[in-house]
Amino acid sequence: MKTIGIGLIGTGFMGKCHALAYGAVKAVFGDVPAPRLEVLCEVPSEKAAEYAGRFGFARSTSDWRDLIADPAVDIVCITTPNKMHKEMALAALAAGKHVHLEKPMALTIEDARQMAAAAAGARGRTITGYNYLHNPAITHARRLIDAGAIGRVVQFRGVIDEDYQADPELPWSWRAMREQAGLGALGDIGCHLVSIANALVGPVESLVAEMQTVHETRPVEGGGRKPVENEDIASALLTFRNGVKGLITASRSAWGRKSYIAFEVHGTEGMIRYDQERMNELHLYQNRGEVAEQGFKTILTGPAHPPYGEFVPAPGHQLGFNDLKVIEVHEFLRAIVEGREAKPNFTDALHFEEVIHAVARSAETGERVVVGLR
Amino acid sequence: MKTIGIGLIGTGFMGKCHALAYGAVKAVFGDVPAPRLEVLCEVPSEKAAEYAGRFGFARSTSDWRDLIADPAVDIVCITTPNKMHKEMALAALAAGKHVHLEKPMALTIEDARQMAAAAAGARGRTITGYNYLHNPAITHARRLIDAGAIGRVVQFRGVIDEDYQADPELPWSWRAMREQAGLGALGDIGCHLVSIANALVGPVESLVAEMQTVHETRPVEGGGRKPVENEDIASALLTFRNGVKGLITASRSAWGRKSYIAFEVHGTEGMIRYDQERMNELHLYQNRGEVAEQGFKTILTGPAHPPYGEFVPAPGHQLGFNDLKVIEVHEFLRAIVEGREAKPNFTDALHFEEVIHAVARSAETGERVVVGLR
Amino acid sequence: MKTIGIGLIGTGFMGKCHALAYGAVKAVFGDVPAPRLEVLCEVPSEKAAEYAGRFGFARSTSDWRDLIADPAVDIVCITTPNKMHKEMALAALAAGKHVHLEKPMALTIEDARQMAAAAAGARGRTITGYNYLHNPAITHARRLIDAGAIGRVVQFRGVIDEDYQADPELPWSWRAMREQAGLGALGDIGCHLVSIANALVGPVESLVAEMQTVHETRPVEGGGRKPVENEDIASALLTFRNGVKGLITASRSAWGRKSYIAFEVHGTEGMIRYDQERMNELHLYQNRGEVAEQGFKTILTGPAHPPYGEFVPAPGHQLGFNDLKVIEVHEFLRAIVEGREAKPNFTDALHFEEVIHAVARSAETGERVVVGLR
Amino acid sequence: MKTIGIGLIGTGFMGKCHALAYGAVKAVFGDVPAPRLEVLCEVPSEKAAEYAGRFGFARSTSDWRDLIADPAVDIVCITTPNKMHKEMALAALAAGKHVHLEKPMALTIEDARQMAAAAAGARGRTITGYNYLHNPAITHARRLIDAGAIGRVVQFRGVIDEDYQADPELPWSWRAMREQAGLGALGDIGCHLVSIANALVGPVESLVAEMQTVHETRPVEGGGRKPVENEDIASALLTFRNGVKGLITASRSAWGRKSYIAFEVHGTEGMIRYDQERMNELHLYQNRGEVAEQGFKTILTGPAHPPYGEFVPAPGHQLGFNDLKVIEVHEFLRAIVEGREAKPNFTDALHFEEVIHAVARSAETGERVVVGLR
Repeated sequence: MKTIGIGLIGTGFMGKCHALAYGAVKAVFGDVPAPRLEVLCEVPSEKAAEYAGRFGFARSTSDWRDLIADPAVDIVCITTPNKMHKEMALAALAAGKHVHLEKPMALTIEDARQMAAAAAGARGRTITGYNYLHNPAITHARRLIDAGAIGRVVQFRGVIDEDYQADPELPWSWRAMREQAGLGALGDIGCHLVSIANALVGPVESLVAEMQTVHETRPVEGGGRKPVENEDIASALLTFRNGVKGLITASRSAWGRKSYIAFEVHGTEGMIRYDQERMNELHLYQNRGEVAEQGFKTILTGPAHPPYGEFVPAPGHQLGFNDLKVIEVHEFLRAIVEGREAKPNFTDALHFEEVIHAVARSAETGERVVVGLR
Repeated sequence: MKTIGIGLIGTGFMGKCHALAYGAVKAVFGDVPAPRLEVLCEVPSEKAAEYAGRFGFARSTSDWRDLIADPAVDIVCITTPNKMHKEMALAALAAGKHVHLEKPMALTIEDARQMAAAAAGARGRTITGYNYLHNPAITHARRLIDAGAIGRVVQFRGVIDEDYQADPELPWSWRAMREQAGLGALGDIGCHLVSIANALVGPVESLVAEMQTVHETRPVEGGGRKPVENEDIASALLTFRNGVKGLITASRSAWGRKSYIAFEVHGTEGMIRYDQERMNELHLYQNRGEVAEQGFKTILTGPAHPPYGEFVPAPGHQLGFNDLKVIEVHEFLRAIVEGREAKPNFTDALHFEEVIHAVARSAETGERVVVGLR
Repeated sequence: MKTIGIGLIGTGFMGKCHALAYGAVKAVFGDVPAPRLEVLCEVPSEKAAEYAGRFGFARSTSDWRDLIADPAVDIVCITTPNKMHKEMALAALAAGKHVHLEKPMALTIEDARQMAAAAAGARGRTITGYNYLHNPAITHARRLIDAGAIGRVVQFRGVIDEDYQADPELPWSWRAMREQAGLGALGDIGCHLVSIANALVGPVESLVAEMQTVHETRPVEGGGRKPVENEDIASALLTFRNGVKGLITASRSAWGRKSYIAFEVHGTEGMIRYDQERMNELHLYQNRGEVAEQGFKTILTGPAHPPYGEFVPAPGHQLGFNDLKVIEVHEFLRAIVEGREAKPNFTDALHFEEVIHAVARSAETGERVVVGLR
Repeated sequence: MKTIGIGLIGTGFMGKCHALAYGAVKAVFGDVPAPRLEVLCEVPSEKAAEYAGRFGFARSTSDWRDLIADPAVDIVCITTPNKMHKEMALAALAAGKHVHLEKPMALTIEDARQMAAAAAGARGRTITGYNYLHNPAITHARRLIDAGAIGRVVQFRGVIDEDYQADPELPWSWRAMREQAGLGALGDIGCHLVSIANALVGPVESLVAEMQTVHETRPVEGGGRKPVENEDIASALLTFRNGVKGLITASRSAWGRKSYIAFEVHGTEGMIRYDQERMNELHLYQNRGEVAEQGFKTILTGPAHPPYGEFVPAPGHQLGFNDLKVIEVHEFLRAIVEGREAKPNFTDALHFEEVIHAVARSAETGERVVVGLR
């Protein structure tokens, strides 16, 4: 199996996460080409050089176009602020590269559509950074549902909460601007919840929604306050294409919640529950056996839940947030090797974008919105 | 303090609960008139006599009009099937009695309005059986919110689930008929959730909603199946009168949920969480002190949360479901002694009915519904 | 079924609990003689009269010997401070009464033995106040073990904690005196844990133990400090008669613990866990079925766990602390009606006393102690 | 900062964990020399070569003496079966190398003493694989205790359970032999618990203990059964040198427990609780503020708990088992750079060995054993 060259744009939260994942994937899984860490892009160039040394990249640059043009780079990883995603992704696809893009795809649904269209016609493969989907617990939930463990699915409920914008006195930043950040809670975290709902129940047909901005202004350095232009909280009642109903809510101002992604899938014979803050547990209730012995089971993930065992051969020892990115990278490398589409690629992710933008539109118009209509 | 005479109609789930509560309230609290258990009504009369002996009532009857007419009866407790509530309550009020009515008030919103109007002009006081409101944990949540412990309230989320209608092969019954049962999950349990939302956040202004019937038909004894006419699941996005947003969902077909009433109140400085299946716990997060020491606190109720201490002087020893009814009875007796309205009386409860019927209307029309409009 | 007359000595924590339980038992269960609340004893006589009115007793007295002598009294309930147990119990037995005695039996093991001997030769039946044993969750744990649900039992672990003596500045009281209180944490709460271990695994053969006094002195009103003469914490390694090993620990100075009685029973095919602070839950792990679906089940008690259903017909609605005493009273009344010994009677309870006194002796001598040796 | 050469012996559970950790540490932390993965040792040589490619090592060998002799190797990582630890560690120390040794140190206490003595006189530094110590949650527990957050420590309780030897029909293996495996549960997992007790409370002075072999024989391939020579369960009552009391228990046959390392530290002003199966949470109770608001806080680890933030800048996103080894490697590399001893080195680890061997001796003799006496 030959090696594969990696170019990484960005060294922040997700940039580091990518660097670690591409560095570890071969040791963890074995069955993939060994990634060569070729080029790291950051500004200014001194920082790029420093982080290239730290992350183990062979070269560095402060010009992302150079990185894309580098013939040794096969995969372009884009972990920059959202507003730069579109231009970089289109350029990388045009150059025939594989693209590993962090979520959300873009600031607007129009941009996301353009990117998905470009990917559909491109030589390179794409994958988007919906890392939670790769959690063995969630994969197992999907497997249980498919196997009929809870009967016919009847309702999906999902919550995604963090508190990084809960403090009223947090200074105003680019996050508050539609033009810089696009949507608020929906774009930052809501799309993750949609990706999970989609994996477990399927695509969303239509919805009605509401949004709130909890803190209408934020203090500006030097005095005064500026308005917050996007939502802190959004909620929606969903109808999935298969007729299942759902409700979701997302908040970036939920004190105490650090990485709370909780869902329930209700079925005619049981229920599955999950909470990302305890990401190595899955809860299962089945209406089987003696009533006196029925209850929610707390299943600790382990080697029985692939690919957990690639990381640790002992159950209950726990994977962490960064491990999920390793599984995502594995999926991408396997897709490239096998000549198939990765999950979720730009086409898959476009649906998640369509749902969150439909939530925003319904909240603004007060009307039911059919997802994907233009 | 003089005694007070009790007449109880019904000996089922709630009838027994009333009998126990009126029997215990004087010993628990001390500061109320001692209830005299005067008349028990049940059919047939043999069963009435048997239960009168068991529950400690002095007399029994199979005619509820006799019970209401009995001069020794000061309070009429109505724990019969919902469709009989209206006639009994109106008769008791007309006879000048105090009325302790189990929820929901009636099958239709028109009936509930008529009952509330009657109560408003009556000599007797009223109370409705929203027992969960009297849980010291929920009372404490209210106190914390009022004291600003979580800042300004920004979102309410509530879930109420049971699984008594989750089994697809459960036989068809009166519960499935609009004419006999009225609403489904909303009337049985949804109104409890509304009562709690109202206590913690205030009245609801408007909403959009959806409903589902999970099991569209149920088997009939002797063969064949009959249609289920009311909802198994209902969900709504709420706007409270004070501008707070909320979302609620209720299911009577949620496998694994036995008495799940879970809510979250999100504020600008913290969050309160609660789950009725652990009814002696309250969860509080506050954005105070060192970040490294912040977390949700699990508060076990105790004497610091009145009136817990009237039952047990030691914290964490736990109240049970039947104890909540004792607190409700105490509230009623104190209101009568003090010559004030009890909480929640028919007027209060009418709002809960208006909300659940608005949920049903919105789900049927697909439109936003303003609560309380006729 | 004829009625049965009750005399209650004491109106404190446990006195009130007895009054409520004897008042409720007929309504809850039906299948027992209706208790007549005949005489309440308290000092001074004004308080006795007041509480008789409140608790519903027909008469009151400030002389417990009068209560015992009263021909209308069939059962004598003793809920007074521990040091008075022996004299009262012996007198009641001598008078031919049934005796319902709160735990622990007495201050010394010699006194407990004398009481058990008296009970063995008496006409009246006895029961001791080990209320936790009657929790449907614990009864179900016993049933599961007997049915082999976890295979052969191999280890018992138990913890009982409260924090009523955790505050270093809590004033010195009679609780600190050997002569007034006897043992410390062992007598107050440790014996409860022993009663549960005995119910689930069987009697204890021998043990090695340690004790600690966390706060060696306590402040006395008016200034100065006096020594604490008994233990705050005790721990032991147990060998049960059937060869199973165990370890237990008890603390009355464990901050945060309010009514924590947690045990684990390890078996060759599974494990049972329980925590009294969530007294309506039982946790069960079984090594059955797919490994990927194994986990601890959280079983919420309900009608499938008798006699829960006598209190509430719906599962998960929860019993409270005071309800356990009602079940205990039911056991006593049924035993009297059926002419059999109640569980746990003085003989049963003597074993629990022998274990806690063996813990104290081992801690003092540093040697292994065989339980029950004189 | 110059680079540092790594030689790794072993490619199993812990071998892979070491490879990943040395591969990631520079990217995660930055402030260490970049590790060069020089030589991987495994047998046979084909497997060594394969894993060298997968793990990213430059060379491979099937002779561990070659690895130690390799001048490019600065640190020798030993992850082989326990019985080989002594010979390899002594050889590496004699060659002037730094030694990173997995626990336990050796099969016998005599061997461990010899190794600690060799390390004390060696040029190279040592560290032992007590990875749980490096969990930010446990580090924070230590910090809280040192800062007096729970007052004076009065009791330590610890449990360590897994179920890898719970199945009675699991075939007999080397794990069952004293000569091959040394101690049972104590050596495999008990020593981890001791390392944590030591970090939080200090060294152990003396103890009394018991042991059990749950499954006395195990089936041998081809028929028949062979005896299990070491313990499945061990328990002890501890007296720490500072006078604090403790109790610990370890089981390798505890069904349902996958990586359960639970401890409680009781103090005069609060309590700290922890459970490794939820390794990103710490529970803290403090007797401060309003009684009505006191409760155990569930603290989710985050950047406020160093070095969590080096892995993920967002709280609650969670570290995994393999991340702990990265922190351990960081400690070792920093110690080497700073010319100081790493924690825990061979001298520190010898105490953990002395405690578990004292447990075994006390269990065998039935006597109290003073730890460290020869």
